Amino acid sequence: MDTKTQSQNLTPTLIQKAHTLIKPHIHRTPVLTNKTLNTLASTPQTPSSLGDTPSENQSPASPKFHFFFKCENLQRIGAFKARGAFHALLRLIETRGEDEVRRRGVITHSSGNHAQALALAAKTLNVPAYIVMPRISTVSKIEGTKSYGAKVIFSGSTSTEREAVVAEVQTQTDAILVPPYDDFNIICGQGTTGLELDEQYRELVTRDPELSVHDGSWGLDAVITPVGGGGLNSGVATWFSDKETKVFGAEPSFEGADDCRRGLEAGERVTSVKTLTVADGLRTPVGVLNWEVISDKEKVAGVFAVSEEQIKAALRLVLERMKVVVEPSAVVGLAVCLFNEDFRRIVEREGGEEGWDVGIVFSGGNTTVEAIGKLFS
Amino acid sequence: MDTKTQSQNLTPTLIQKAHTLIKPHIHRTPVLTNKTLNTLASTPQTPSSLGDTPSENQSPASPKFHFFFKCENLQRIGAFKARGAFHALLRLIETRGEDEVRRRGVITHSSGNHAQALALAAKTLNVPAYIVMPRISTVSKIEGTKSYGAKVIFSGSTSTEREAVVAEVQTQTDAILVPPYDDFNIICGQGTTGLELDEQYRELVTRDPELSVHDGSWGLDAVITPVGGGGLNSGVATWFSDKETKVFGAEPSFEGADDCRRGLEAGERVTSVKTLTVADGLRTPVGVLNWEVISDKEKVAGVFAVSEEQIKAALRLVLERMKVVVEPSAVVGLAVCLFNEDFRRIVEREGGEEGWDVGIVFSGGNTTVEAIGKLFS
Repeated sequence: MDTKTQSQNLTPTLIQKAHTLIKPHIHRTPVLTNKTLNTLASTPQTPSSLGDTPSENQSPASPKFHFFFKCENLQRIGAFKARGAFHALLRLIETRGEDEVRRRGVITHSSGNHAQALALAAKTLNVPAYIVMPRISTVSKIEGTKSYGAKVIFSGSTSTEREAVVAEVQTQTDAILVPPYDDFNIICGQGTTGLELDEQYRELVTRDPELSVHDGSWGLDAVITPVGGGGLNSGVATWFSDKETKVFGAEPSFEGADDCRRGLEAGERVTSVKTLTVADGLRTPVGVLNWEVISDKEKVAGVFAVSEEQIKAALRLVLERMKVVVEPSAVVGLAVCLFNEDFRRIVEREGGEEGWDVGIVFSGGNTTVEAIGKLFS
Repeated sequence: MDTKTQSQNLTPTLIQKAHTLIKPHIHRTPVLTNKTLNTLASTPQTPSSLGDTPSENQSPASPKFHFFFKCENLQRIGAFKARGAFHALLRLIETRGEDEVRRRGVITHSSGNHAQALALAAKTLNVPAYIVMPRISTVSKIEGTKSYGAKVIFSGSTSTEREAVVAEVQTQTDAILVPPYDDFNIICGQGTTGLELDEQYRELVTRDPELSVHDGSWGLDAVITPVGGGGLNSGVATWFSDKETKVFGAEPSFEGADDCRRGLEAGERVTSVKTLTVADGLRTPVGVLNWEVISDKEKVAGVFAVSEEQIKAALRLVLERMKVVVEPSAVVGLAVCLFNEDFRRIVEREGGEEGWDVGIVFSGGNTTVEAIGKLFS
């Protein structure tokens, strides 16, 4: 099936079905609010902080925000990736039967959260898992993946080297590939983040109407998620595709990590990215099927980028003010709301006096005290 | 009134009254649970990790824990100190009248969380506040205190120097002293932490009985809190003084910071401490009234100490596994449960096969990304 048809087949109903399927295996992570961050984001930036940016000499935007933080840093294995991995594996078992999947096993290449997510799902569902990781991966990530019982196979660091090792293992084992983001069932799994955030927002504002910028609100005005490979963003956009809530994406701009934003500008997907942004979960180019969803204006209203300094400033606020541990990739959406004047002007214009209720997905929390220290040393 | 009588007057009923009084001004902070930490604490330490300690050559204790973390790091101003400050100020207004308190104002000396707590309470209740801080305090703490509208007056770093400046300001302003911990009303305020933890524990295990180590539980087996000046510990012990729940204290052992533990051993309060433990909120000796409560065996069942390395190991677990930001002082109770063999043997002996449900108070979360980095560099 071509990607255009696949993209059209991605519907809120399938996200709902995915949720029913994975619910016993994942956490319904909490949605937090924070007055200090609402106030900070609802204060115009100082003209001096806009120096050296395209917004220099313009008067700062004056948007109003109430935030709803979906804490996937508290998800199993510490990231939303558990949703997609469980869903992909459960669907494999549904379509091919337990026996076949257990005999063949599953394989992926990842040095990050998807490796641990697939290892956990495979262990839970009693399926062998082969994870191809670059030889240079940190010991803690290798140990983390092994601790879920997966077989770790090392490779070189380039995608060619990794794919060669995957092919080799597949020849030996017949293991089924579960890609990290460019996959129909992975996207449906990640989209359940949007479904829960949507539900939890309604529960919260029903119980405490003051949490909303509106008097009586029926849904979030907007949701913003990080965009790396685009699994999370395209899934969440699928959930909200028949609702009033607008979905946005956020990327780091460092060394061209904003491939999705640049692709949208150029009207064509950027296929390769080489960046060492601190948001290390967002160093990959957006996937083919993900691009099909994200480039659909009806589904994703825009993608915005932020600098390394802005990501670090947002990270500091979340750690020091909210007292919540997240990884750098998790805060790019918040950084866009706090610092990106193009986005802030949209919220000022469309939200007006009342402002917007904005859902922000904290995508993960897998970092170490050493990494935090290094980032701010 | 002598401290013995004052100590006898500290009753659960007064904690309940304090709670009613301060409730509109404080957060009912969440109580979190964490399976990974339960598992880690319920695993015997390796004999090698007990080398060089008094437990060397003994077989490691085998206790079983389920933890209930009371997150006062999410309290207003980021620490339980908001409770005591609001209570002390509200009681002053009740007993002396609004006019007198507003005319005279309040004063304290603190470089830590009590300064910001009193500043917040004073601002909220429209009372002038004078905070004497050592000239060498960090800029962020000075700015934090000023941001609540308090007048900051600088002093030298020794207690003599600080007290001289307090006396001087009092002569000029007639401001009423609100001590950080050695005070009847401060203790009642901090004790409300115990009341809420007690309530929330019952709510949690009623909703999800699997959270408890017991089949049908009526209360926590134990609660452990950090002991610095002893306001929190003596307040929490007061709340539980007519209940089955045992209360314990936790201290750093570095450079004699375990003054309370040593005092209990010697049968006499240690009056002076000079330590630079990483648990910087616990560098003070326990107060006179606090000692009266804590040295009462009926109220506090024991105080245990942990090393700097153990505090840092517990801090790492809370940050990396629970994804919650706390300050080093906040984790000494958890460090005792994880690493102190004397305490672990008590839990093994008294908890038996089932184990204990243990409430742990995370006392505060005021730290910076730089401080975290420095601690683990």
